[in-house]
Amino acid sequence: MKEVRVNLGKRSYPVLIGAGILSEANVVGRWLPGRQALVVTNTTVAPLYLSRVLAGLSAHDVHSLVLPDGEQFKNLELMNTIITELLRLRFSRDACIVALGGGVIGDVAGFAAACYQRGIALVQVPTTLLAQVDSSVGGKTAVNHELGKNMIGAFHQPRAVITDPEVLATLPRRELCAGLAEVIKYGLIRDAEFFQWLEGNLDRLLALERAALEHALARSCAIKAQVVSEDETETGVRALLNFGHTFGHAMETGLGYRDWLHGEAVAAGMVVAADVSVRLGKIDAAAAARITAILGRCGLPTSLAPGLSARRVRELMGVDKKSKSGRLRLVLLDAIGSAGIAGDVDEALLLASLDAHVQVPA
Amino acid sequence: MKEVRVNLGKRSYPVLIGAGILSEANVVGRWLPGRQALVVTNTTVAPLYLSRVLAGLSAHDVHSLVLPDGEQFKNLELMNTIITELLRLRFSRDACIVALGGGVIGDVAGFAAACYQRGIALVQVPTTLLAQVDSSVGGKTAVNHELGKNMIGAFHQPRAVITDPEVLATLPRRELCAGLAEVIKYGLIRDAEFFQWLEGNLDRLLALERAALEHALARSCAIKAQVVSEDETETGVRALLNFGHTFGHAMETGLGYRDWLHGEAVAAGMVVAADVSVRLGKIDAAAAARITAILGRCGLPTSLAPGLSARRVRELMGVDKKSKSGRLRLVLLDAIGSAGIAGDVDEALLLASLDAHVQVPA
Repeated sequence: MKEVRVNLGKRSYPVLIGAGILSEANVVGRWLPGRQALVVTNTTVAPLYLSRVLAGLSAHDVHSLVLPDGEQFKNLELMNTIITELLRLRFSRDACIVALGGGVIGDVAGFAAACYQRGIALVQVPTTLLAQVDSSVGGKTAVNHELGKNMIGAFHQPRAVITDPEVLATLPRRELCAGLAEVIKYGLIRDAEFFQWLEGNLDRLLALERAALEHALARSCAIKAQVVSEDETETGVRALLNFGHTFGHAMETGLGYRDWLHGEAVAAGMVVAADVSVRLGKIDAAAAARITAILGRCGLPTSLAPGLSARRVRELMGVDKKSKSGRLRLVLLDAIGSAGIAGDVDEALLLASLDAHVQVPA
Repeated sequence: MKEVRVNLGKRSYPVLIGAGILSEANVVGRWLPGRQALVVTNTTVAPLYLSRVLAGLSAHDVHSLVLPDGEQFKNLELMNTIITELLRLRFSRDACIVALGGGVIGDVAGFAAACYQRGIALVQVPTTLLAQVDSSVGGKTAVNHELGKNMIGAFHQPRAVITDPEVLATLPRRELCAGLAEVIKYGLIRDAEFFQWLEGNLDRLLALERAALEHALARSCAIKAQVVSEDETETGVRALLNFGHTFGHAMETGLGYRDWLHGEAVAAGMVVAADVSVRLGKIDAAAAARITAILGRCGLPTSLAPGLSARRVRELMGVDKKSKSGRLRLVLLDAIGSAGIAGDVDEALLLASLDAHVQVPA
């Protein structure tokens, strides 16, 4: 088992990574502050892993809540469904929510934990690659609003993150690939050597080779943990984690959170961000080509979402959280393995880059 | 002008108290991190003080949102109305919410500030006595759920609290008296001398004498600030501020947040809590009589809410936030000026005390 530590003073916690750990006794239970636990999961994950988690919590006063599966449900209403269940169970302040699922479950259950009685404990048990390398680590929780993604939320760190790569065996390949987009992102923004390792070991990851997965998970979580420790509430360096996301979020909003997975939107967003970096002379075209190539090998999209024009995407970027007082700030690459923030990207250049990536109908 | 400091490290802030300060230029504006400000108020306060606040913010990109007035509106939906307005205005992370109103506005606007893009700045401008001495100081924000009061919320400290006692001139006398319940509470839990001062100066407060008001406001805020500084997230001593509240919240829930003002419920709750303290031999009957007397002089209720039985109130106390793992914890008095927490109050004694305060229909 590998352990990655997220250092946040009194709110520090471990990410425990190991194939099969979800079947170990008390692996979740020992992080609970009291007896009460509500396992929040969805209709897809429940038949696969809920009984395993409940079995490990048999010494507790444990209940479960199975929610519908999908980003389109990640709203204030779903969060309120969890709150209602906690109140119905008369759960107190030392209760704990166990979020068993992908990013949507982690986000909405995490936000419910942040808000229930102004904050109760949370353990993340991510079951998608995306959640394992990204959303389960770092304490960001949120729900969507019809006018923007993740616009209502809180910073709420978990007590622990329990990451079992074995659960990826049941993950649809499309979601595995979407998760790889974030793994690749970590290499791009912070670790050239890891990016190179990914180029050389992508097939092993796609084949779910255990050692390769554990390495990729641990390296991704370590980079995320390092960045989060430096900047918990995203006032500085944490914004670098949003590489590709300003474009990605805009496209997800434009699609009404349908059709594309988050990682797919991020992949396309990273291609555009790399292209903007090339146009500004920050990286060379060969570097951008390597990025497009590895994303393409994952079967990830490398152009704007179907039906969205350059202007529409630009318009939707306006309310992104990275915009400070209306001024758009973009995460760009200075090299593979190094990202920075640009606050003054020329609008014409930006539009030209977007335009070069519009998807032409087949 | 008096200034009370709330010491919370990087999140420290001042409570500025002065008759007429709301008319001073930039008194609110200088706390804003950026140009964007949304003044959130209600239909009662807007005609009285909104123009004054907007005038002071004329150098900013300022907008206002006028919400319906009443505790029954303090829910997730109203919070979402504020979020929607912020998104419609395309406000960014360095925007600020100015909460102009009583406790409901402070709570819901504060919670919206806590959650919008995972947290933006907040300035509290409380316009009721209750909000001035209690809810505006300390960072508690929340909305109600049909199964319990303040069950969905966050700790979110303001940048500053701007308290102008002149606005109390337009406050209905009933609300002034409800606010005095919390003022009296501060004396009871922490400052016997202040309680005695209140007994001697109650008529001056009821007559809105400026010097008396400023003293009572500053002393109340100082006690609250001190307790909050010692325990920001209510893991210990902060619970003492809830003296009378476990009973009070239960009655408010039982009434569906109608009929009684919060301070009225707290007044009745303090009478019961004092009586339980007498029954346990912690204080003598004369002390409890002084408490009932001063609350009575304010015209505040000193028995359970009409229509609620002892058993019903006890039942509703079950989901109070102070209950840890189902075990009810009560704030009781050891003396006038000193409160403590009891985790093992005998159920029969508790019910007997409640029963002794059931309101007999006239």
